[in-house]
Amino acid sequence: MKKEYCGLFGIYGHEEAARMTYFGLYALQHRGQESAGIVTWDGEKLREQRGMGLVADVFEEQHLGHQLKGDVAIGHIRYSTTGASLIRNAQPFMVRYKGMHMAVAHNGNLVNTMEMRRELESTGSLFQTTMDSEIIMHLIAKYLNGSTIEDAVAKACREIKGAFSLLLQIDNKLIAIRDPWGFRPLALGRVGTSYVLASETCAFDLLEAEYMRCVRPGEMLVVEEGGLHSIQYAEPAMSASCAFELIYFARPDSIVFDEEVYAARKRMGAILAREAPVKADYVMPFPDSGMYAAVGYSQESGLPYENAMIRNHYVGRTFIQPTQGMRDFAARVKLNPVKSMIKGKKIVIVEDSIVRGTTIKTRVKSLREMGAKEIHMRVSCPPIKHPCYYGIDFSSKGELIAANHAIFDIAKFIGLDSLHYLSIDGLKQALGRNDGYCLACFDGAYPVLPGQGCGKMCLECTDE
Amino acid sequence: MKKEYCGLFGIYGHEEAARMTYFGLYALQHRGQESAGIVTWDGEKLREQRGMGLVADVFEEQHLGHQLKGDVAIGHIRYSTTGASLIRNAQPFMVRYKGMHMAVAHNGNLVNTMEMRRELESTGSLFQTTMDSEIIMHLIAKYLNGSTIEDAVAKACREIKGAFSLLLQIDNKLIAIRDPWGFRPLALGRVGTSYVLASETCAFDLLEAEYMRCVRPGEMLVVEEGGLHSIQYAEPAMSASCAFELIYFARPDSIVFDEEVYAARKRMGAILAREAPVKADYVMPFPDSGMYAAVGYSQESGLPYENAMIRNHYVGRTFIQPTQGMRDFAARVKLNPVKSMIKGKKIVIVEDSIVRGTTIKTRVKSLREMGAKEIHMRVSCPPIKHPCYYGIDFSSKGELIAANHAIFDIAKFIGLDSLHYLSIDGLKQALGRNDGYCLACFDGAYPVLPGQGCGKMCLECTDE
Amino acid sequence: MKKEYCGLFGIYGHEEAARMTYFGLYALQHRGQESAGIVTWDGEKLREQRGMGLVADVFEEQHLGHQLKGDVAIGHIRYSTTGASLIRNAQPFMVRYKGMHMAVAHNGNLVNTMEMRRELESTGSLFQTTMDSEIIMHLIAKYLNGSTIEDAVAKACREIKGAFSLLLQIDNKLIAIRDPWGFRPLALGRVGTSYVLASETCAFDLLEAEYMRCVRPGEMLVVEEGGLHSIQYAEPAMSASCAFELIYFARPDSIVFDEEVYAARKRMGAILAREAPVKADYVMPFPDSGMYAAVGYSQESGLPYENAMIRNHYVGRTFIQPTQGMRDFAARVKLNPVKSMIKGKKIVIVEDSIVRGTTIKTRVKSLREMGAKEIHMRVSCPPIKHPCYYGIDFSSKGELIAANHAIFDIAKFIGLDSLHYLSIDGLKQALGRNDGYCLACFDGAYPVLPGQGCGKMCLECTDE
Amino acid sequence: MKKEYCGLFGIYGHEEAARMTYFGLYALQHRGQESAGIVTWDGEKLREQRGMGLVADVFEEQHLGHQLKGDVAIGHIRYSTTGASLIRNAQPFMVRYKGMHMAVAHNGNLVNTMEMRRELESTGSLFQTTMDSEIIMHLIAKYLNGSTIEDAVAKACREIKGAFSLLLQIDNKLIAIRDPWGFRPLALGRVGTSYVLASETCAFDLLEAEYMRCVRPGEMLVVEEGGLHSIQYAEPAMSASCAFELIYFARPDSIVFDEEVYAARKRMGAILAREAPVKADYVMPFPDSGMYAAVGYSQESGLPYENAMIRNHYVGRTFIQPTQGMRDFAARVKLNPVKSMIKGKKIVIVEDSIVRGTTIKTRVKSLREMGAKEIHMRVSCPPIKHPCYYGIDFSSKGELIAANHAIFDIAKFIGLDSLHYLSIDGLKQALGRNDGYCLACFDGAYPVLPGQGCGKMCLECTDE
Repeated sequence: MKKEYCGLFGIYGHEEAARMTYFGLYALQHRGQESAGIVTWDGEKLREQRGMGLVADVFEEQHLGHQLKGDVAIGHIRYSTTGASLIRNAQPFMVRYKGMHMAVAHNGNLVNTMEMRRELESTGSLFQTTMDSEIIMHLIAKYLNGSTIEDAVAKACREIKGAFSLLLQIDNKLIAIRDPWGFRPLALGRVGTSYVLASETCAFDLLEAEYMRCVRPGEMLVVEEGGLHSIQYAEPAMSASCAFELIYFARPDSIVFDEEVYAARKRMGAILAREAPVKADYVMPFPDSGMYAAVGYSQESGLPYENAMIRNHYVGRTFIQPTQGMRDFAARVKLNPVKSMIKGKKIVIVEDSIVRGTTIKTRVKSLREMGAKEIHMRVSCPPIKHPCYYGIDFSSKGELIAANHAIFDIAKFIGLDSLHYLSIDGLKQALGRNDGYCLACFDGAYPVLPGQGCGKMCLECTDE
Repeated sequence: MKKEYCGLFGIYGHEEAARMTYFGLYALQHRGQESAGIVTWDGEKLREQRGMGLVADVFEEQHLGHQLKGDVAIGHIRYSTTGASLIRNAQPFMVRYKGMHMAVAHNGNLVNTMEMRRELESTGSLFQTTMDSEIIMHLIAKYLNGSTIEDAVAKACREIKGAFSLLLQIDNKLIAIRDPWGFRPLALGRVGTSYVLASETCAFDLLEAEYMRCVRPGEMLVVEEGGLHSIQYAEPAMSASCAFELIYFARPDSIVFDEEVYAARKRMGAILAREAPVKADYVMPFPDSGMYAAVGYSQESGLPYENAMIRNHYVGRTFIQPTQGMRDFAARVKLNPVKSMIKGKKIVIVEDSIVRGTTIKTRVKSLREMGAKEIHMRVSCPPIKHPCYYGIDFSSKGELIAANHAIFDIAKFIGLDSLHYLSIDGLKQALGRNDGYCLACFDGAYPVLPGQGCGKMCLECTDE
Repeated sequence: MKKEYCGLFGIYGHEEAARMTYFGLYALQHRGQESAGIVTWDGEKLREQRGMGLVADVFEEQHLGHQLKGDVAIGHIRYSTTGASLIRNAQPFMVRYKGMHMAVAHNGNLVNTMEMRRELESTGSLFQTTMDSEIIMHLIAKYLNGSTIEDAVAKACREIKGAFSLLLQIDNKLIAIRDPWGFRPLALGRVGTSYVLASETCAFDLLEAEYMRCVRPGEMLVVEEGGLHSIQYAEPAMSASCAFELIYFARPDSIVFDEEVYAARKRMGAILAREAPVKADYVMPFPDSGMYAAVGYSQESGLPYENAMIRNHYVGRTFIQPTQGMRDFAARVKLNPVKSMIKGKKIVIVEDSIVRGTTIKTRVKSLREMGAKEIHMRVSCPPIKHPCYYGIDFSSKGELIAANHAIFDIAKFIGLDSLHYLSIDGLKQALGRNDGYCLACFDGAYPVLPGQGCGKMCLECTDE
Repeated sequence: MKKEYCGLFGIYGHEEAARMTYFGLYALQHRGQESAGIVTWDGEKLREQRGMGLVADVFEEQHLGHQLKGDVAIGHIRYSTTGASLIRNAQPFMVRYKGMHMAVAHNGNLVNTMEMRRELESTGSLFQTTMDSEIIMHLIAKYLNGSTIEDAVAKACREIKGAFSLLLQIDNKLIAIRDPWGFRPLALGRVGTSYVLASETCAFDLLEAEYMRCVRPGEMLVVEEGGLHSIQYAEPAMSASCAFELIYFARPDSIVFDEEVYAARKRMGAILAREAPVKADYVMPFPDSGMYAAVGYSQESGLPYENAMIRNHYVGRTFIQPTQGMRDFAARVKLNPVKSMIKGKKIVIVEDSIVRGTTIKTRVKSLREMGAKEIHMRVSCPPIKHPCYYGIDFSSKGELIAANHAIFDIAKFIGLDSLHYLSIDGLKQALGRNDGYCLACFDGAYPVLPGQGCGKMCLECTDE
């Protein structure tokens, strides 16, 4: 199954549009580290710079100061779970059609890709990539004959199914879209006289932009000379915002879906403390993932909070192979426990999720060897039992430990004295709204099902 | 004034000596990010690899697996405050003399460099670098005529004054030395049948080595075939271990000078809470520096602990110039406050030190703009008023804010509602031993004074 | 006007197809140094590696040994005269269409691009690049509905006008095509049981392949399991092979259009000696361009041949700006005359072409300053007066010195005692066949005229 | 045996001294491609930039425009035959001694290194490298006590034996020295009001400097404020200029030892034609090595000259491993014969030397396979039978084919119809002076013998 994480940023009417987009993407870097791209409109045509790697690696001063001219820009960062990382799949994706210049940046995953593609091929469309974005562009082009841009985009967006937050640049128009379910976030803001759009508000903070509101499910915002107008291109479906953005994926200083991430994570920890209290010496996270829920757990339970696992801040992605016999090296090099804090202690560890459990098992074993008396784990979300079709990468169902094993067995596998997951009700309570979230990875209730062809399509896609 | 931070690692009698040293340096990377080097003894001669940059950049598999043969190795990482970073100044420093192969790795700063150098030049020594290490090597060579290696090294070490933790490799001997004051740390450990030496014990943890003890002030440890023996080459002076290693410089999971760093920092925070309590909504650190003292402050004061400043984990050393008008960008890009945690709140910030105060001022201003009601700062060490001659880089006295300004004025400059520093007595109490630490940067009581020529020498040095 | 130089290589049925293609492109590197690419068919899908730079820079062992699996491959190298060099324009160009995987490598320039593109857009085609290759692919896809691959390709090739030597890979078929005029070369060879195709036979020499014959104008060769078959997809037009391949562009050890390049160049020099003899001390080339015609001139005239201009073999593409006042540096750094061979001498210089004349003027001035008594230049082709629409890059007509100036004036501008160009008749005689060559750049007789829209199209293209 | 090739360049009194030195080294690049370095005197201290690789790789604009300030500079390029290439061995070599700043650049090889080093170590000198240059510096420092700089340098140069052309920079003085035998070249020139020094005059040509004369054997030229003065620091020994500079090593557009290289090579070819005529269709070189002697042979013999071996100008140092079964690939990829020029032809090949003969054997085999009727080789120097102790790298004696085999056997091994070497008398005649050259590699008559210790020293050296 092909999955992508992505971050989007767009700006309209700023003389340093490319530079602002660069910093917007910089703030969103946690949403994708594989490729980055910026497209600007210079008044006559689109200009682009895309590349593999981090934002800081892909762009140089000459790109921002010289090449990417124009006061409108959209940017994209991407992480793909498919084996090969290809520059041709870096976004924004650009085409020309009948003198128009069009670019798209897409966050999310469509579920009717295969049907769409077959249909388009039957009328002569030729595909150069396996990206959903290319399908969207072909659809828009198809509907552009005799339609306004807005109508063509609306028609195209009504045909595709699944998760899509989009930024489109069509000549000098900047268009922002969220799918009718509202799976992926997209926020609108303002800096000076310019409008900005971003996956998360932490990008606004860096640019000293003011957060206005979310783009709404089924809404299309068109920014052009003369201002901004909103078109409800489709009825909002039952709201299905991705709970995992709040649990794990978004930055804790962001607002997504109009919810404060930091506060939501503390609530998850607090509710977890009520659902599964434990007598222990202290609470700690494995940094950075559980840091905010752990604070919530500590405050609700009254147990002291400790930072007793120390990060090596210089661990990069690669290092040389360790000496034979150095066990569990990759785990240990990143986090080292403070020995004196472990020996003889009863410890509660708050984590934000367990996917396969193998790294956690290694860390727990290491704590045991240092003499921990009791180790209890509290997880700030329910067990993940089902794959996500909308753009979050859990390994395939076979690898999700909670899909196949009872909690008791997981605790045993990891070597814990006790293990508790936040309940689905607890999560709903923490999320702040009782309805409106997609919890399919926990409960299997998919808001929109993938098309029949999807399985086959995905096989084809992943072979890239 | 020339200053260097450094980290040392050595190992004797391990078939993967270079690889172990690589990982030892990896764990010590926080002690110096400018250059790294490893020297091994292959049974006939020394082999070296040195380079500019992080450990992960300098070494490749071919170095560890092929080039750096031998079962004895010493390694060095370095950060220099002098303007230019030169590969020729990367250590370990190697020479040949009468068929002997010698290398030295040095942590600390000598204070009689200039006298030593003049004296050596008057008898014909030629200098290629401005490093203290070259002086040490010339001295050892001078005394080697007719002496044993141990005697020559001892004589040399009795002539030099100041801070020196040394690892020497002379043919197949590995020699570890601390100066008579014990300024800089150096720890002895064991892994399997091999002895290891490191500036901090976090290097032992990564290698699953067992910590044995500190090398003592005035002690020389000689590791060679047949084992380890200790020589007290000089009377220990009044113990003057660097307090700043515990306050700030060492990793919190390390033991230095036989003290647990994590526990000491928590004690600093706790004593600070007693010395300067405040009514507030919560305590938070500016990560990562104040994270451990803040936990101590929180636990002692009963105020909740929060992680309300969020790090961007993708901030590298360089980024492209921000848009004009983006104020305080460099500070904001690294840490972003969680807005909802700031508005209307009374906040205690625990920091481990204030040097110039400008970055902190920026952060505080930003918190004010977000609506913080009160901002109190508690610093987990006394005001730094005096320069360090032994190897910790405070900017020259003119730039130490506490050297020239009253605490009240500093608070005003930064924009704080209140500011308290840990008292010298409080620090002594937290350090766990009432005597035995160099506190010269706080109280000006220098254990050993720099020689007359030092000022001149330093001018010469810094022109490199 | 957009111009491209290119080189093509293809191989069918070789277990190291990618590696053979790598070396084939390596031998053709003089045909394009800007980008390189290889596509292989692994039995299920196409695999590609493309990049900017020389063949040696673009490919690494992992590409050849691992990634580019399969026993069929096509490769492409390219030099474009458009300002920007874009990775997206690197070939081979790949698409998928209805489950088929297709790639094309193209050498030459179409003259009806604009009409084709407009027509295709009107039926819904979307373009991502400005390359002729994308148009060819859209045409093939259009005709694939209900046709065999061979028929679709033939139909597409009958619609496009201009210069095109093509290598197509459609699933497991390798198809080689030359346009009906035969503008650009394409040769067929054999190595072991594999067929190979290359722009020039020097690629065959390196691979120890045997040259069989040229692909004929209007011919399509299909290589697939079971062997090779030839289809005459269009009537050959009046043969219009590019004379400039023999004069300048092809390597002297190649055979193109069934002619030996080395022998042809010597004949040009020899005929030039008969057309424009001169009393002089010796003949020399400016290496390497005139080296072969100069030998012909020397042998026919009886004047000694000298290598009196010395190349600096270490001159790369970039060097640091010279000191102010170092005149004509870029010219001098590449070639330095042997002073003693110049002073007081009457010299004949044989060159293969004069485009703008400025570098030659610099060299001649330098020879004068060293005391040359007489300097005569003989050019081994007629004056270039007209632009090429088929893929050779002369600067636009305004910059072609011979388009705007009499030979006498050119001689004066350069500072020559005499200047003679080979006559058109002399060139025809040297080419070995009196008809069958495109001499449009000399005589303006274009075999196929560019479409009306071409000028506009080109403007659009060059803005990339 | 340690061998080095090197090139030297120096300039005094030029405001762009570093930039001029950069281009001087650029012109001398053929003398060493392994490392490059420039040292300038900025009025107070020396500044340096050294690195591994070509001149164009080591220096950037910032070095020349900013870092390497000053109007005096010396530069060095180096190729070493020892296995490892170490940055620490890159020159110029710098030291400080009693407030003086000294740098040296050295071309040649000393023969009493070991004795000198032992003697210096016995009085306390410490060595960091294995370079002769470090010994020279220690000697100068030793004699500086109570002497003028000129006297100290003179004394040092009278103690060392062997080949040394030196450029020294001692504070603001630039000193140029040749050994009493005059082994290696060093030329003096002038550009504007500045003096320049270079290994070969081709560096002067590029800088538009005027050649004045050679530095004489045993001469020391001191350039300082107020001008140039010459000191004959030692009696010239029997002149022993290296014949191989003229035969092979120097660029053909240079003057070395006051002889024109191009003319000398043509004379070698002409005398060879008289000594060993042959009935053949034509003469050709294997470019570029034999190109100038081949012209001489052609003109004297009346046989036509051909350029029938074509160089691939894009062959870099590395390429990917060829397909198994591609024989002699490394040889073929560099030079490809023009097939039609080979078949049925009687060919004379003029080469400038045969060292091991294996590449030549490969080329000859290839010509045979293409149908060459007869292949005769003429070598423009006598058989190389003895190693060089003065800085030219022939492989050790065991690998010199002519040291161990009769000419008849070499011809057979290579596959030639005939083989003739230039006679020693013929060479002397071609060199233009009957005496004054070192011909030790041909006749074993060494002008100065290596010291006893040299063998041992060399073992030690080569182990780096």
